[in-house]
Amino acid sequence: MSTHTGVGASAINRGQLVDAIRRAGQVSRVELVHRMGSNAATVSTAVRSLIDDGLVVEVGRAASTGGKPAVLLSLVPDSRFALGVSLDHSGISYVVANLGGAVVGRLRRRGAGADTPAAVVERIGTELTSLVTHVGVDPALLLGLGVVSPGPITGSNGMALTPPAMQSWRDFPLAESLEASTGLSVLVENDASAAIVGEYWSGTAGASRTFAALYMGTGIGAGFMVDGIVYRGASGNTGEIGHICIDLDGLPCWCGARGCVETVAAPTALVAAARSRGLPMPGLSVVEDFAALARLSQAGDPVAQELVTRSARAVAAAAQSLANMIDVDLIVLTGPSFTSAGALYLPVIQAHLDTTFFARDCHRVEVVLSPNAADAAAIGAAALVLQSELAPHMAAGAAIDNRGSRRLARQRLQRA
Amino acid sequence: MSTHTGVGASAINRGQLVDAIRRAGQVSRVELVHRMGSNAATVSTAVRSLIDDGLVVEVGRAASTGGKPAVLLSLVPDSRFALGVSLDHSGISYVVANLGGAVVGRLRRRGAGADTPAAVVERIGTELTSLVTHVGVDPALLLGLGVVSPGPITGSNGMALTPPAMQSWRDFPLAESLEASTGLSVLVENDASAAIVGEYWSGTAGASRTFAALYMGTGIGAGFMVDGIVYRGASGNTGEIGHICIDLDGLPCWCGARGCVETVAAPTALVAAARSRGLPMPGLSVVEDFAALARLSQAGDPVAQELVTRSARAVAAAAQSLANMIDVDLIVLTGPSFTSAGALYLPVIQAHLDTTFFARDCHRVEVVLSPNAADAAAIGAAALVLQSELAPHMAAGAAIDNRGSRRLARQRLQRA
Repeated sequence: MSTHTGVGASAINRGQLVDAIRRAGQVSRVELVHRMGSNAATVSTAVRSLIDDGLVVEVGRAASTGGKPAVLLSLVPDSRFALGVSLDHSGISYVVANLGGAVVGRLRRRGAGADTPAAVVERIGTELTSLVTHVGVDPALLLGLGVVSPGPITGSNGMALTPPAMQSWRDFPLAESLEASTGLSVLVENDASAAIVGEYWSGTAGASRTFAALYMGTGIGAGFMVDGIVYRGASGNTGEIGHICIDLDGLPCWCGARGCVETVAAPTALVAAARSRGLPMPGLSVVEDFAALARLSQAGDPVAQELVTRSARAVAAAAQSLANMIDVDLIVLTGPSFTSAGALYLPVIQAHLDTTFFARDCHRVEVVLSPNAADAAAIGAAALVLQSELAPHMAAGAAIDNRGSRRLARQRLQRA
Repeated sequence: MSTHTGVGASAINRGQLVDAIRRAGQVSRVELVHRMGSNAATVSTAVRSLIDDGLVVEVGRAASTGGKPAVLLSLVPDSRFALGVSLDHSGISYVVANLGGAVVGRLRRRGAGADTPAAVVERIGTELTSLVTHVGVDPALLLGLGVVSPGPITGSNGMALTPPAMQSWRDFPLAESLEASTGLSVLVENDASAAIVGEYWSGTAGASRTFAALYMGTGIGAGFMVDGIVYRGASGNTGEIGHICIDLDGLPCWCGARGCVETVAAPTALVAAARSRGLPMPGLSVVEDFAALARLSQAGDPVAQELVTRSARAVAAAAQSLANMIDVDLIVLTGPSFTSAGALYLPVIQAHLDTTFFARDCHRVEVVLSPNAADAAAIGAAALVLQSELAPHMAAGAAIDNRGSRRLARQRLQRA
């Protein structure tokens, strides 16, 4: 595991320690010292505090290798929980995740649509309470709420530049409102950056150390992870792959640029194009209409096939740009729109990378479809809360750091 | 400073410690503890070993703030040196840098051209010996040689996929040959990744913590730095911004893809286009011919202006893609081709970012022209040697790490 507080610092990141125990299943203190690159005294102290807090238990002894057999440690999965919400105008996903990394409850409800932000926030509070009650989680064990949304986020407001369909959310104090509505500590994150945490948390990335999540909801974004840590850039707004230029003289994009990937490839653009070309769109949310378009394409409709093929080529070119810029060895396709269309996009992206990735003589870039595409962002939001709340004293300001996630509300958890 | 060996590790990165002292000028041990995020005992031990090796001296005492005034430390700039070579078919740059970060000697000679790799390596050995003798550096104080070249590098060979003009270098054992030719320990790096180290080392980046170098030689590349550490990705081949797609249906690129930035914007492509449209090109190296094209453009030649404008627009779109993907707050234009044309490109790139950077409501992306554009890669190569050779015991394998640079030859320095 990596850390960014400097060599010799005496603190240990409790979140990363919990993560190491979770990933190992059962593990000795000696093995943790090795995995954390730490020393015995520091790990012992940190483990003791996790045991005292009921997060970790001793579960037996390892097979002897000559000396005294080592005591094995394991997480108590249901000792803590976090909530994750993925908010989009197309749909709202909710998950309850436990410390063990399992999703113990999930819910999908209609999106923000044209409702006022205040009304949506109130509804989220109600729906969360209903989910927590239904799952039977003790609210006292809830560490907090992670909420993700598309587009840039700012420390003070939540969202800054917002997609056209969510203009009313611009400068809306999302975190403060949700905190007031739920009584929970709230953390705000970009959807793609949260999704990559969700994929890592769920094990989709396997052994890859440097991978990206390509996220398709109504728009397109990406997240990058290096050694289990999200790369967040100067202001937490990395991975805006939907707004890289694939056509110098292309159509204007809502972001102010021209020829962005989203103008050609995003579900919002495809659904609009399909409708203007007379294809029968159900007129539900963008994500559902896009799923209908994917079904038409799979059924052989030539216009649908043309639109989806063009989009897949653009996403493949964007994946090439991403891989050539960041040098990843794995790209996970995730987000609700890949739930319906992932099988159409994956072979196009993989074939394109196999022939165009610049360092292909050094290694391949593998493309996989997430088994959690619909919920990855919400899962990641919950995972970020668990990591963040377990490591509240870590230094802020490290430039590559998921701990930099906007933790706007520091209020301790209360009964919802 | 950040590190990647894990909290609680007892080692300290000597290279980063030297870097901290160099950047501070004069600094106390207490201040170093603070800057390294370390503890007093660890810093004291490391400083003692630097003093014993003659790299650091005590230079006096700070003004008293009540207690006993702290002893100030300073580097001995000329206690160690490193050589840097930037190898391109257009030109070869040589620098001698000292531990203090100063370039104490530099030389520019004709490029690899059509010579065989073996002949070029022999010439590099001769030219280096001549430079070291001329500058009057004791070869016993040389820590090693850093060599940079365009294109992907592999651990075993140096270069893998090579630009068309350097096909004969494909799979040539560059590091081994240079080691045999010079008797020095050799480190190989991509030119753009080295250039960003050179910019950091030279102070161009100022206070920026997350910045990129946009490098233009015969082609176009980029390097990223985060907290003083180069981001190297899965295989050290990040930042291939010349091979991101800016035209889905564009011209085939030598790399195997279509519509790459280099097909529209690279000096190689521009010089070829200028020649085919009848502009008078001197027929020297690509970099010199490109400089002639830039002069024609500045003198008002309409064809030259059209070509340069189109290239600047493409580079600006690439910078937009870079900024939206990596979220940097500074882009430094560097590399030999920006020496001649930087003033034509900078305003176009800055204006484009001001109106298209996705998170522009959060912060600006500033664009500056490097004062060391011609030599930044060679300076960075020398700086990497100084860092690498001062920290020989650091753990390998960290994914973001300039220490991961290919240190192919581990032979200790010998008299050249």
